[in-house]
Amino acid sequence: MPRPSRWDDVVAAAARVFSQKGFGGASLEDVANEVGMLKGSLYNYITSKEDLLFAVVRPDAEELLSHARQLHAKDLPASEKLRQIALVHIEIIDRHLPYVSVYVQEIAGRGISQEWTDMDREYMSLVEQVFVEGVGAGDFDSALDTKMAARSLIGALNWMTRWYEPGDPAQARAKAAQLSDIFLSGALARRKG
Amino acid sequence: MPRPSRWDDVVAAAARVFSQKGFGGASLEDVANEVGMLKGSLYNYITSKEDLLFAVVRPDAEELLSHARQLHAKDLPASEKLRQIALVHIEIIDRHLPYVSVYVQEIAGRGISQEWTDMDREYMSLVEQVFVEGVGAGDFDSALDTKMAARSLIGALNWMTRWYEPGDPAQARAKAAQLSDIFLSGALARRKG
Repeated sequence: MPRPSRWDDVVAAAARVFSQKGFGGASLEDVANEVGMLKGSLYNYITSKEDLLFAVVRPDAEELLSHARQLHAKDLPASEKLRQIALVHIEIIDRHLPYVSVYVQEIAGRGISQEWTDMDREYMSLVEQVFVEGVGAGDFDSALDTKMAARSLIGALNWMTRWYEPGDPAQARAKAAQLSDIFLSGALARRKG
Repeated sequence: MPRPSRWDDVVAAAARVFSQKGFGGASLEDVANEVGMLKGSLYNYITSKEDLLFAVVRPDAEELLSHARQLHAKDLPASEKLRQIALVHIEIIDRHLPYVSVYVQEIAGRGISQEWTDMDREYMSLVEQVFVEGVGAGDFDSALDTKMAARSLIGALNWMTRWYEPGDPAQARAKAAQLSDIFLSGALARRKG
């Protein structure tokens, strides 16, 4: 359906309401109040609450996946790819926290439809490929559990939606570097010789 | 209030219903149907849906916190403490996935009340202390961001509620060892000399 002029406001309001109340606990009336329109007017924009959920989460999910696909095709060391995965993921959280929170809370790993399950799996698989490439090149430890590493990195990134204070790109870059260092080097001191 | 005889069944049913539908999307009627009693009879057990939520999440949250406090007092290397944090956390997920899922989805880091915020913070602080001790002893890298490490470990553990298939204690131990190896040693191959 054509999107009337306040579409972006409606989606932004839905992101705030869903991230605060949860999708199940939020009503279309809550969203209408947040954006300052009558509930009936919302039906010019959507046909159901699910429509709004997918409108909230789709652009960032697609951006993240598109970036991971492009990175996969590049000829870069695995450690650099891991750093870029973390950086782009955290930059999106920094710019769009309420939207990403809704994705993490309501969609990721929850199997709500084949399309979203496929997107989740493809992202997970592209992240795992980074670890697989690193092991293959001899840069990463041959005993590394690549699936566990990918799931743990994605878990640590997604968990940031619960504690990260957004709106500071320099902080986002610093957190990305710290997280990458932990996944690349671990906590143990590396003693020379 | 005194708990009639089917209390454990009611809490188990609530854990399943909340983990499937989300707390906001689930009704007391859903819980009554799941346990096979009339909705009115549920009020012999609880006065509100919130009562049920806290009954679902409290025992495991208290067990996890109690274990972390005991571990804090022990004279063990930080690397061994980290391994035990991961092991106990994953064992609880293995034994009680629906209950832990509800905690992760509805409570952790969401600031729903002072009591739960304090429990979250204490657990986070105890996990961070493990990294701080390791840095202090010279076992862990002096450049480690201990807060980021603790948050990332807890994030990776909590994220397991979205993908872990429970009921296999041997698998739980294996995953705990893999996750600990990643946080201790990182992905990079450690070359000798």
